Amino acid sequence: MDAIDVIRAKRDGHALTPEQIDWTIAAYTRGDIAEEQMSSLAMAVLLNGMTRDEVARWTEAMIASGERMDWSSLDRPTADKHSTGGVGDKITLPLAPLVAACGAAVPQLSGRGLGHTGGTLDKLESIPGWRASLSNAEMLDVIASTGAVICAAGTGLAPADRKLYALRDVTGTVESIPLIASSIMSKKIAEGTGALVLDVKVGSGAFMKNVADARELAGTMVGIGTDHGVRTVALLTAMDRPLGRAVGNAVEVAESVEVLAGGGPEDVVELTVLLAREMLAAAGVDGRDPADALRDGSAMDVWRRMISAQGGDPDAPLPVAREAHEVLAPASGVLTRLDAYGVGVAAWRLGAGRARKEDPVSAGAGVICHARPGDTVREGQPLLTLYADDAARFDRALAALEGAYEIREGGEPDLLPLLIDRIA
Amino acid sequence: MDAIDVIRAKRDGHALTPEQIDWTIAAYTRGDIAEEQMSSLAMAVLLNGMTRDEVARWTEAMIASGERMDWSSLDRPTADKHSTGGVGDKITLPLAPLVAACGAAVPQLSGRGLGHTGGTLDKLESIPGWRASLSNAEMLDVIASTGAVICAAGTGLAPADRKLYALRDVTGTVESIPLIASSIMSKKIAEGTGALVLDVKVGSGAFMKNVADARELAGTMVGIGTDHGVRTVALLTAMDRPLGRAVGNAVEVAESVEVLAGGGPEDVVELTVLLAREMLAAAGVDGRDPADALRDGSAMDVWRRMISAQGGDPDAPLPVAREAHEVLAPASGVLTRLDAYGVGVAAWRLGAGRARKEDPVSAGAGVICHARPGDTVREGQPLLTLYADDAARFDRALAALEGAYEIREGGEPDLLPLLIDRIA
Repeated sequence: MDAIDVIRAKRDGHALTPEQIDWTIAAYTRGDIAEEQMSSLAMAVLLNGMTRDEVARWTEAMIASGERMDWSSLDRPTADKHSTGGVGDKITLPLAPLVAACGAAVPQLSGRGLGHTGGTLDKLESIPGWRASLSNAEMLDVIASTGAVICAAGTGLAPADRKLYALRDVTGTVESIPLIASSIMSKKIAEGTGALVLDVKVGSGAFMKNVADARELAGTMVGIGTDHGVRTVALLTAMDRPLGRAVGNAVEVAESVEVLAGGGPEDVVELTVLLAREMLAAAGVDGRDPADALRDGSAMDVWRRMISAQGGDPDAPLPVAREAHEVLAPASGVLTRLDAYGVGVAAWRLGAGRARKEDPVSAGAGVICHARPGDTVREGQPLLTLYADDAARFDRALAALEGAYEIREGGEPDLLPLLIDRIA
Repeated sequence: MDAIDVIRAKRDGHALTPEQIDWTIAAYTRGDIAEEQMSSLAMAVLLNGMTRDEVARWTEAMIASGERMDWSSLDRPTADKHSTGGVGDKITLPLAPLVAACGAAVPQLSGRGLGHTGGTLDKLESIPGWRASLSNAEMLDVIASTGAVICAAGTGLAPADRKLYALRDVTGTVESIPLIASSIMSKKIAEGTGALVLDVKVGSGAFMKNVADARELAGTMVGIGTDHGVRTVALLTAMDRPLGRAVGNAVEVAESVEVLAGGGPEDVVELTVLLAREMLAAAGVDGRDPADALRDGSAMDVWRRMISAQGGDPDAPLPVAREAHEVLAPASGVLTRLDAYGVGVAAWRLGAGRARKEDPVSAGAGVICHARPGDTVREGQPLLTLYADDAARFDRALAALEGAYEIREGGEPDLLPLLIDRIA
């Protein structure tokens, strides 16, 4: 077999054979297919697509490129959640301890943020002492003792995907549904969870800008999961506005702790409970209602033990940015729009996100939204507070917010419903 | 500017702006755009195309990436020919001295073969002592004293194209008309010729398998040349069967010398004279007829001086392969088909061509065609002789010839006319 033959086949609109796919992924993992060959193939896949059979085989081959984790020693079923990424999407933080408190084990292998969407590990690292990197033995210890673990995926899981993901990121080949679906599902299946709930975000702040694309991605992923014996459900949820009020790292941890304490913004609570119910149902755990576990403090107990088990101090004060800047409402009326993408880019430019993988993030940087779409505001009241370690960052963040919100007297917000669709 | 933005623009079907093109080529030449980024861009160009303005600017930027040669010190106009590559296409060898004998100067910067098509430099290197690499000063010396020079293009000419060509070769992105046209024309315009005749080959042995694609490529190249003040003409010529009888290196030199001596296969003579007339007309040289210069030995005189000036001995015996194998006619009748691609691949596998740039070629390897399409043959008569340095190569060469020829009693060959079209 030969890389150029495979590239030409996809370039010329043919479906790749199972043998071609297996060879390609194995040869790329070994380094026998050069990065520049894989990138022209990725562009050909992006432009010419893949059949359902091709995506399934491609995923299978990426799983086979590395190890598969095994949680069979745990005394209860496992459930995991994956979000395709959004602005203010801190849901994993309250969700993992909540689901553990309700009786499932949650092995949540997470990633870092890139671009305008945040990363779970970046958020948790704002907690003093907390460690993202665990050995497989440590992971098993944390989950066995607390019911949940949130940590970095080891390099042994789907190494082909790890290589390909880094390549796609710099070659304009991210936005391909077959490549996104196989990337997510190869990691999640290799991670060994028995049940998986996918939170497919839709709107300006998400990868998928419209419901049709999101539905296609969700359907592709549910198909792959089901074919691999993982009970998989996808929810399509709104990402036209930020989730909750906080966008950043430490500010999102603080908001998550509010939710675990029984408070927090309504949409964050609603989505957390919705996803928890789906995870418990998919895992076959028929016990207490997640809303109760938020109210009675049992989810908070798991959170505190989980953070401590990874070296973090749940009582330590969270980092605060050195500088703050208030954006005031320019008029009175109803906030009809608060664009997720604009707020996400602003938070990114304030230092909460990174431009390149090797960049550090600022723990304190971010945005707090004092008003949410539908709220009535008065001219001159604080609309947003921007946080950064360096005041020089405010100008470019403010530029990202230009046109990102709209206030109209007697207006009505035109929003996506929080839960758009459910695909099982 | 950012490589990913440029890739996305082309991926999403937009025309690149002049600024994007200039930046891309300059940054790629400097190494600021990575190979894997250029390869996904090349695939996007291949699948989404380029407008005429984009191709012109892309070519311009590749020319600007290096030096431009200057022949203004010569006492006569310059003319050059470029063939898109074929099987048995030795035309440059008799053509350059012929045009020089008729009054134009011929700075013929040539390449090496890759794949099943031969390279002019590989052919000439079978002449003992002949050197392909000359400094710019040596080039000028040879052309000033003999009227013609055939040598390797210096690394200073269109370095962006040099890099991109090597990349396209391994990433399945060769077959793009905008990329082929800009690659050829950037080198030829940087080479500084005043007149250019393009020999665009059509048929199984050529890049362009059909007349429509060849016409599009020819039109694109003539447009670019004209826009740059180079008088450019393109001929579409047949490459469904090999040109002449000899396919290889030394065997093609020998056939070229036959043509210069006033003999040689009819099609080689006809195409050489046709191209010479076009080159002289485009250069504005209104002198003797090339057919006379072949007959009276003046082209041969230039050939001998040109070869000697580059260290070659025009009288030295040419290398001969150690092993020969005859393919006999399996039946009596008319040879209705002799497929250029099949014969080209056979010669390649016999050792006349290379699989990778760094491979050596065999000077003696190749194929001699004893019959040509339209000839009547008798069962058992020699049809082809294969030459190789190692008899182990015959099997794979014979496999390439399976189905590559057809003999039918009372049959008529269905051939492309030698000259298919002329585009000016």
